[in-house]
Amino acid sequence: MTEGSIGVGMIGHAFMGAVHSHAWRTAHRFFDLPLVPQLAVLGGRDPERTSAAADKYGFAASSTDWRAVVESDDVQLVDVCTPGDTHAEIALAALAAGKHVLCEKPLANTVAEAEAMAAAATEAAARGVRSMVAFNYRRVPALAYARKLIAEGRLGEIRHVRAVYLQDWLSDAEAPMAWRLRKEQAGSGALGDLGAHIVDATQFLTGDLLTGVCATTTTFVPQRPSGSGMEDVTVDDAALFLGRFASGAVASYEATRYALGRKNAMRVEVNGSKGSLAFDFESMNELSFYDGSDGDSAGFRRILVTEPSHPYVGAWWPPGHLLGYEHTFTHEVVDFVRAVASGVDPAPSFVDGLQVQRVLDAVQRSAAKGSVWTEIPIEEGAGR
Amino acid sequence: MTEGSIGVGMIGHAFMGAVHSHAWRTAHRFFDLPLVPQLAVLGGRDPERTSAAADKYGFAASSTDWRAVVESDDVQLVDVCTPGDTHAEIALAALAAGKHVLCEKPLANTVAEAEAMAAAATEAAARGVRSMVAFNYRRVPALAYARKLIAEGRLGEIRHVRAVYLQDWLSDAEAPMAWRLRKEQAGSGALGDLGAHIVDATQFLTGDLLTGVCATTTTFVPQRPSGSGMEDVTVDDAALFLGRFASGAVASYEATRYALGRKNAMRVEVNGSKGSLAFDFESMNELSFYDGSDGDSAGFRRILVTEPSHPYVGAWWPPGHLLGYEHTFTHEVVDFVRAVASGVDPAPSFVDGLQVQRVLDAVQRSAAKGSVWTEIPIEEGAGR
Amino acid sequence: MTEGSIGVGMIGHAFMGAVHSHAWRTAHRFFDLPLVPQLAVLGGRDPERTSAAADKYGFAASSTDWRAVVESDDVQLVDVCTPGDTHAEIALAALAAGKHVLCEKPLANTVAEAEAMAAAATEAAARGVRSMVAFNYRRVPALAYARKLIAEGRLGEIRHVRAVYLQDWLSDAEAPMAWRLRKEQAGSGALGDLGAHIVDATQFLTGDLLTGVCATTTTFVPQRPSGSGMEDVTVDDAALFLGRFASGAVASYEATRYALGRKNAMRVEVNGSKGSLAFDFESMNELSFYDGSDGDSAGFRRILVTEPSHPYVGAWWPPGHLLGYEHTFTHEVVDFVRAVASGVDPAPSFVDGLQVQRVLDAVQRSAAKGSVWTEIPIEEGAGR
Amino acid sequence: MTEGSIGVGMIGHAFMGAVHSHAWRTAHRFFDLPLVPQLAVLGGRDPERTSAAADKYGFAASSTDWRAVVESDDVQLVDVCTPGDTHAEIALAALAAGKHVLCEKPLANTVAEAEAMAAAATEAAARGVRSMVAFNYRRVPALAYARKLIAEGRLGEIRHVRAVYLQDWLSDAEAPMAWRLRKEQAGSGALGDLGAHIVDATQFLTGDLLTGVCATTTTFVPQRPSGSGMEDVTVDDAALFLGRFASGAVASYEATRYALGRKNAMRVEVNGSKGSLAFDFESMNELSFYDGSDGDSAGFRRILVTEPSHPYVGAWWPPGHLLGYEHTFTHEVVDFVRAVASGVDPAPSFVDGLQVQRVLDAVQRSAAKGSVWTEIPIEEGAGR
Repeated sequence: MTEGSIGVGMIGHAFMGAVHSHAWRTAHRFFDLPLVPQLAVLGGRDPERTSAAADKYGFAASSTDWRAVVESDDVQLVDVCTPGDTHAEIALAALAAGKHVLCEKPLANTVAEAEAMAAAATEAAARGVRSMVAFNYRRVPALAYARKLIAEGRLGEIRHVRAVYLQDWLSDAEAPMAWRLRKEQAGSGALGDLGAHIVDATQFLTGDLLTGVCATTTTFVPQRPSGSGMEDVTVDDAALFLGRFASGAVASYEATRYALGRKNAMRVEVNGSKGSLAFDFESMNELSFYDGSDGDSAGFRRILVTEPSHPYVGAWWPPGHLLGYEHTFTHEVVDFVRAVASGVDPAPSFVDGLQVQRVLDAVQRSAAKGSVWTEIPIEEGAGR
Repeated sequence: MTEGSIGVGMIGHAFMGAVHSHAWRTAHRFFDLPLVPQLAVLGGRDPERTSAAADKYGFAASSTDWRAVVESDDVQLVDVCTPGDTHAEIALAALAAGKHVLCEKPLANTVAEAEAMAAAATEAAARGVRSMVAFNYRRVPALAYARKLIAEGRLGEIRHVRAVYLQDWLSDAEAPMAWRLRKEQAGSGALGDLGAHIVDATQFLTGDLLTGVCATTTTFVPQRPSGSGMEDVTVDDAALFLGRFASGAVASYEATRYALGRKNAMRVEVNGSKGSLAFDFESMNELSFYDGSDGDSAGFRRILVTEPSHPYVGAWWPPGHLLGYEHTFTHEVVDFVRAVASGVDPAPSFVDGLQVQRVLDAVQRSAAKGSVWTEIPIEEGAGR
Repeated sequence: MTEGSIGVGMIGHAFMGAVHSHAWRTAHRFFDLPLVPQLAVLGGRDPERTSAAADKYGFAASSTDWRAVVESDDVQLVDVCTPGDTHAEIALAALAAGKHVLCEKPLANTVAEAEAMAAAATEAAARGVRSMVAFNYRRVPALAYARKLIAEGRLGEIRHVRAVYLQDWLSDAEAPMAWRLRKEQAGSGALGDLGAHIVDATQFLTGDLLTGVCATTTTFVPQRPSGSGMEDVTVDDAALFLGRFASGAVASYEATRYALGRKNAMRVEVNGSKGSLAFDFESMNELSFYDGSDGDSAGFRRILVTEPSHPYVGAWWPPGHLLGYEHTFTHEVVDFVRAVASGVDPAPSFVDGLQVQRVLDAVQRSAAKGSVWTEIPIEEGAGR
Repeated sequence: MTEGSIGVGMIGHAFMGAVHSHAWRTAHRFFDLPLVPQLAVLGGRDPERTSAAADKYGFAASSTDWRAVVESDDVQLVDVCTPGDTHAEIALAALAAGKHVLCEKPLANTVAEAEAMAAAATEAAARGVRSMVAFNYRRVPALAYARKLIAEGRLGEIRHVRAVYLQDWLSDAEAPMAWRLRKEQAGSGALGDLGAHIVDATQFLTGDLLTGVCATTTTFVPQRPSGSGMEDVTVDDAALFLGRFASGAVASYEATRYALGRKNAMRVEVNGSKGSLAFDFESMNELSFYDGSDGDSAGFRRILVTEPSHPYVGAWWPPGHLLGYEHTFTHEVVDFVRAVASGVDPAPSFVDGLQVQRVLDAVQRSAAKGSVWTEIPIEEGAGR
């Protein structure tokens, strides 16, 4: 470890690997970081593809043995970018080895795995080892600003939350089978892939936790082409659920990859007694805010969240110059590195990740039992 | 009855009375009607206010006895604009007297009343007496056009329906008690007031019926100022439910009067395998339509539904000149009068109104039983 | 003249006749009027079509002699809905006969005619005879509210005005010849038809007058099918001009009927030192307002101008229930009848109409002289 | 020069330096480039600040002598990111030294300088030395896609172009003096800063050139605080002009930094005989497209230009995941490096930059001469 730097070992080099590595390369170019990330080792399964990705992404080395990445002396921080079924094993090993861990969402494929990870993270924190689950949408400036408005009381008492995450890449019933459609790898379908984001985002925004849900899920296309034959889809194609927050606010959620024409519509609305907010990730630089005190000139304000006074924005461009998807990861890296350097626990913690997992689990259990209302146990330390 | 005319007796002269009478006065000025409506008698409770309203609205006479209105020889059609607890009695009497009946929504406050009304309407139809429930949103040109696109198959197989009806006039916890907050008069709260509209609209648009729901309801403000004291609110402030259509499509619904900043946001989205639609009543002249066959220039089209080729529009103004809320009632009158004159049953029928009532009832039963999935019996003849 | 009523004689029964007659029938149904309009006589050229229109619109009588309409004892108010080349003759005769005059826009086809009309109107006003030019967009609630915000100083010093009026019904080069394309009848093309509206609207909103312009006009399709041959188009297809207000604010204008896809996009933006406004007639119930004092939560507010506290709105529906195109005419009738009854001069006056005509004339002169800056003489009394 | 790499020397390290260096660091991480950019030397005035910027941006060295940067053996490509008054001198020296040149816009502060630069670039091209002016908006995927639609004929014959570039950072009359408000450094005000972008963008989109303009400019705030006193603002605060393309299309333009609430509203609309387009840089991932062949379901399509089939997008994220401002520079680098490697001249060339300068010059001359129509000479080779 070079003084003033921190070595990053990343496992996984597909979509998430590409965007995470961009964040690791870019964060210190725009933000003042106490530790400069060094892209040390990239881990993957296939030697040639991993080596090529390491070159492309700027890693100094590559390996097909994730344990070697975790244990490398050049690595002080492990970034887990693999599918959910391997998160627990890698993260637990990394924490045990004293490495800080950034883990992609959802934290795990089961509550049991997530519990083990949260426990290990709590134990590691006592040793000064930090961990964070990569719910990057918390670092969208517009959502970070929305959180600020709510925390300041600009919305008053929260009554309604409605959140959908709509994509359409499975609309075509002829599209081929993929790992995201297999329960053993993905854990669940739209629920874990997309639903996890809106559960975390709404808990983050409100500063509150869901206490119960009722749900229904469906699989529109039960089999898809795979090789020369057809393979069963073993996850949900869409998950819909209603929920209730500890405060008494009511909420509705929907996650689907069949909403034709909606490419990445992660939309959240919050209505309070004094104000309301609306957000759509397809216009991620904008926040709609209704201030009930505006009298007869009240209307939803289209705030371009690109002012220097808005979260994260001061490091970038002048007002009105948009940020993109990858900036959310860069901000995540900034916050994580700063937390590591200053010895504080970053959010969202693995406990927060576990709490999201409990919600997803309650959704599945409700859907399996005639949509009956299902309580969600609250983990000590969640939502801090 | 003047030849070529039809005498209208209207019961109720508040908000709905104002807009219905405008429709009766206006329909034949823009559309060719086989029978010209004559505003014959207006019924109300208070003699002075009823008489003043009759003058204002252009009725030839007024009465404080609704039975006298129903039985008047000058009246061939009874328009029921009262709160829901009186719909059944008035409509049944009118049908028995051989008068055509237009009845405001929701059809009734209970399933039992609605069943009696549907049975009477079916029996009356055999005698040439017509009835219609006033779900006016079917006559928004944009929604009528949306129905056309779906019926033509432009959306393919329907997979998702999401509908909310958001208002905010109860956001202020200090706002006084009102009849709409008392169960004995209103039947239910946001559910019957707003939820009924989106249930009917989505069944109309898809040409399909809901077969089951799970639901939760809440009352945010349990007591409100009434006279010198406080009175209990005995209806829901918000109702949220998930549903499933006969086709297998999944759906979500929310009705509330606490969504601060949303004045009349009756919003519907439908996603099919070939296309999608989105509508917001706050922009009622627009329909968003995504055509999956548009290739890489695909995008939600903001259709201004103001072309002569769009439903109802040809009778009005040139393209781009907007219609307003009251036009939906004018179109309703046009369709009803034409049905009466040509001897066919108009839609939505009382059976359709009953079917909506069954959905509302299932929502309330599910909410009362831990959100458990609740089946909805399908009435013969519904959705035709 | 029945006591408490005012007899209306209308000349012309096409598009403008239809919407004006609706306004005359409807105004007193929603607003308290000191005089109830009586649709007395409708004037037109063709006896059968005029008689049929009179029936349809609800006029008691019809005539093919406009002078008879003007002179009828049943007529106290003459509503001029004909093409521009006949405005002057009819309006002058009506004023001479002591009849109040509502005249469609543009006031006339030439400055000379407009000057004669303004002079006659001023002279008639001294005799208690009122006149108004029908720039109905001043009575769009959103624009009336915008005027209020500017008058209250919410925008500060006005610096920028930009206005376009975009339609597309001439986009098709094969569309046939029409009277609006002949200079002798229409005076000008898009300039008088559409440009007149945005000139008046921006002068109304700012409370200021244009003092000079530079301009260019064009005719995209020089000939169009007419009968069995082709006929020359003798007016502009599009007019673009830049202007300067007395205050020093700069402005840009464009009027065209070739903006494919824009059906009725009369759009105005105003930027001041403290706030900004934006409006689009295709969303006529909305006003966008930016309040510079909103700090880092500033954003253009989408105000639904449907609150009871907004101009004209209280007479209609609850918040969020939209008004349409014809309401602007109803509001015009309300204001004119009230002005007549209370003996005050309504706005926009014929002098205001003349002032608009001066602007249109300056545009044409500039365009004819290499776009050179052309001063606009200010008429005494304009813009009051 | 390492084989397979290209050394970049950059002059200037303020806003443009930050975003250009990001592009040079990032391009080969997402795109396959024949030459990998090496950030060799950064040039600036102040030694400490330049050295710090070099560290921050990742340059291997820094220098306070721009000639040393240009002449460095480690530099094969010079990136000119200084204010406009120094462009000519630096670019001419670099071309003379056989270095490829990327020059920020506007190309120069005067037509004479731009002519010299264009001549030198043409001469250099014959020696295999490439040059490009950095009109980065051509590399916004939505605008590149718009260009493609127009080139394919989807809009038919172009009739209307309207473009505005609205910012608001000078709205406050108390804001201090800055170099952009001094004619000797900036050449002009909003005209060169913002107007240059929309002139280039519209010529790019239409594939056509402006042949004449009429214009007016204004300075709202003639003096601003500077040190302890006040200093004269010697440039335009706003520039408005009308134009005409070679094809006969008419156009309007406005550039201002006083449009309160508009942060970066570079908006372009194009109307053709078959289709129309609209774009707003504040929503830079979207293109509105109206296809006149869509019949009664026609409407402006909100295309999210984030599909793999859209220009540049395939190298980035899945559909619906937005790109930001800096991506336009990354794309510029990609195109320039590829052009250098393959020995072709990239666009926009210095001749294109000169042609834009001619338009700006005509605007200033028209404004100075009573807005008279002013012809624009077309440079051989412009618009290729």
